[in-house]
Formats: sequence, C-alpha cells, structure tokens
Amino acid sequence: MTIKLIGQSFSGPTVRVIICLKELGLPYELEPPASMQSLKDEDYIANKHPFGKMPVLFDGDFRITESRPICRYLVSKYQGKHNDTILIPNDVHKAGLVDQFISYELSYYDPPISKLLYQEKVSKRFFNKDPDPEVIKQAREEFAKVLDVYEKLLEGKEYLNGEYSLADIVHTYYAYGIITHSDLWDNRPNVKNWWNRLCSRDAIKTSLEETKSFWENNENI
Amino acid sequence: MTIKLIGQSFSGPTVRVIICLKELGLPYELEPPASMQSLKDEDYIANKHPFGKMPVLFDGDFRITESRPICRYLVSKYQGKHNDTILIPNDVHKAGLVDQFISYELSYYDPPISKLLYQEKVSKRFFNKDPDPEVIKQAREEFAKVLDVYEKLLEGKEYLNGEYSLADIVHTYYAYGIITHSDLWDNRPNVKNWWNRLCSRDAIKTSLEETKSFWENNENI
Repeated sequence: MTIKLIGQSFSGPTVRVIICLKELGLPYELEPPASMQSLKDEDYIANKHPFGKMPVLFDGDFRITESRPICRYLVSKYQGKHNDTILIPNDVHKAGLVDQFISYELSYYDPPISKLLYQEKVSKRFFNKDPDPEVIKQAREEFAKVLDVYEKLLEGKEYLNGEYSLADIVHTYYAYGIITHSDLWDNRPNVKNWWNRLCSRDAIKTSLEETKSFWENNENI
Repeated sequence: MTIKLIGQSFSGPTVRVIICLKELGLPYELEPPASMQSLKDEDYIANKHPFGKMPVLFDGDFRITESRPICRYLVSKYQGKHNDTILIPNDVHKAGLVDQFISYELSYYDPPISKLLYQEKVSKRFFNKDPDPEVIKQAREEFAKVLDVYEKLLEGKEYLNGEYSLADIVHTYYAYGIITHSDLWDNRPNVKNWWNRLCSRDAIKTSLEETKSFWENNENI
C-alpha cells in the first residue's frame, strides 16, 4: 500500500512527518499542494484537510491529518515492521512521558520559536512586511526561558525521555539554522549536546539539510 | 494505588482530566495548589510541573503532566478495567482519527474560545483590566468559522469520530455557559445536538455544573 504525504519540505509539520517516516523505514511519496493558496480551495477543504492545512497523509484509502496524530498513527501501525527503531515504547508509563514531552513542545517550545520564524522568515517573504524588532526581542527572551527549562530537563539524559523517541523528533523544527538565534541552543551544554545528537541521526540530518537549502534557495515560495 | 490530581475545578484542562477519570470509573483525589502564584514556586517547578502549570497527575509514584497526555495515559492503562466505556478504540485507524480530532480542538477550536474566555472572565478578575471589545469581536468571528467546519464534520454523526471518544471530552471546555456566546453552538443544529448529547452524560454534566457554579460564586479566585 502506498503512503502519500501531502506537504512541503519547507514546512515544519511536514518535516516532522518525513523524519518519522524515514525513522520507521517507510517508503512514501511527497506530493506538494499546487500552491499555498490552493489549501483554501473547496476541493482541498472537502477531501484533504477541513481547516485547509498540511500535512495530510494517505495510507492507501485511509486519510489522516495533523502532524503529531499522523506520527502517532504511523508508529502504532508500523513500528517494528521494517526496522527495530522504537519511537514510542510499549511500556505505558514510558509512552505516557513521551506524550508529555510532545505536549511540552506544542505548549511551550513551539510558540516563541514560531514567532521568531514568522518575523524573520515569513513576514517579509509572504506579506512584504518588515520584521518587528520588539516582537523578535520578546520572543527571543521567551524562548531563552523555555530552553533554560529544557537544560534542566535534559540533565544527565541523552534524549528527553532518556531513550530517543517521537518526543525528540517533534522538536526538530526547522527553525535552528534558519532563524538567527542558534546561539540560544549552543549556549546551553545539555541542549547543545542533545541537538547535536539529534542532528547526527540520518533521518533528521538529511531532512533538515533539505529544509535549510529550500529556505536559502527560494526567495519566493 | 491512589490517583492524585493536582488542579482546580475552574480550570479547563483540569476538568478535561476529571471527566476522563469519571468516565473510566477511576476514584481520585483532587488536590488544588495552594494558590495560582504557588505554581511558580521553586518546589512546584522542581517536583510537579517544570513550566509551572496544572494539572499534574500522580498515579502512585508515577507523575505525568499536561491534560491530553494525562488522559491518554489513563486510557492506555485503565480503559476496560472498571467499566466498558471506550474512549480510544483499539483499531489503529479509529484511534488515529480520535487523535486527529483531539488535535483539531487544540489547533483550531481552543485558540478563539480561550481568547473569549480571557477577555470575558479572566482579564477583569485577575488583572483588573477591562475586556477589549475589538478582541472579543474578532475572536467571536474566528470561533464562528471554526464551528462552521464542525457543523460539517458532525453531519450524520452522533459524535466527532462516530462513537463517543476522548476527542469529544477534550472539547467540553468550560467556556459554554460561562462566556456569553452559547448562541454560536445553539445556532448550528449538528453542533447543538452534539453538545446536548455530551451534556447528557453524567461525567460531563456534573463536571461542567461544578465549574459553572465555581465561576458564578467566586468573584476572586
């Protein structure tokens, strides 16, 4: 059965799913939407994503949307079938904590980094609007505080939940290396080591390089 | 083993977990934090929630934070043990779609309703700041559009995923009946019937009544 992923390699949520597919050893076809505007077309809303977003995954006839649910679905269905990489452990307590760290990314890590990304990469390119230095300053401060917590969470651990998991994957957002704040990661030893460990994994390294190159080489997406 | 829930019955995320506990037939002890300020205490940050939030659940010695992960953990561990209520189906596809609808709540349903709630209930009470009519207007319009999508999603279905599930529970936010926009639910037949169906369930009905009464009877929380 073919796995088809509707999304873009410059989009963080799509990259999250691509890394998961690679880690599980699953072949897939990436199908970019016709344009960003086409996500709001009647047909796309009716047959792809009711809120006009990406990514959307088709596993044969089965359709599922939203990056984190897609990843969890792929793990539930395919983990252990093509290789021995474990992204969500079978143990109910360990699995619960993977889920908890996924929620930390969503609730605390993502909002400030998304603000930075919007100001520095999206605002000008898509809306011809200059970045707002005050918003950048606040978001940077907010993100620094979040990384202070991560520095403690990662104390004595190789990965967020001890062993590598889906929780780490959801954090490999495309922002590092694209926005101009990688010093925030690099200045915190536990965070820095964790990040380097993640980027040494083939699935993550290749995906992030592709994303970075896309942002560098396409002035207008 | 005792289940202890740190949270407040006026807090949406706590109520979400309480409903889940009730549905699974699990006894629990609710332990409110000393004060809202105490969530930022060093001890709370170190031993309860690293970002100073609630709810936090202790299942014996096991600690887990964040409402949605807590609910999923409870389902994974206890579903079917005390009654026959199914909140996440065993079937991998059905479970994936429950997860997808949980994500819709988080990404699209919650943001505008949280804005309304903040303006109408939190802003004045906690920060002595008058509500901003422009923000209320925009959030109401945004939420109306989200409910238009739900009206279609619920066409011909009793619950979001067909059968009652955790996806419905996460939507039973305390905002209906507290903010002044219940007409938005009531004006859409599928949404209205879904909501009434949810509120006829004991676990939901009793929890929301308790929340509503709390907001009505406590001017200063």
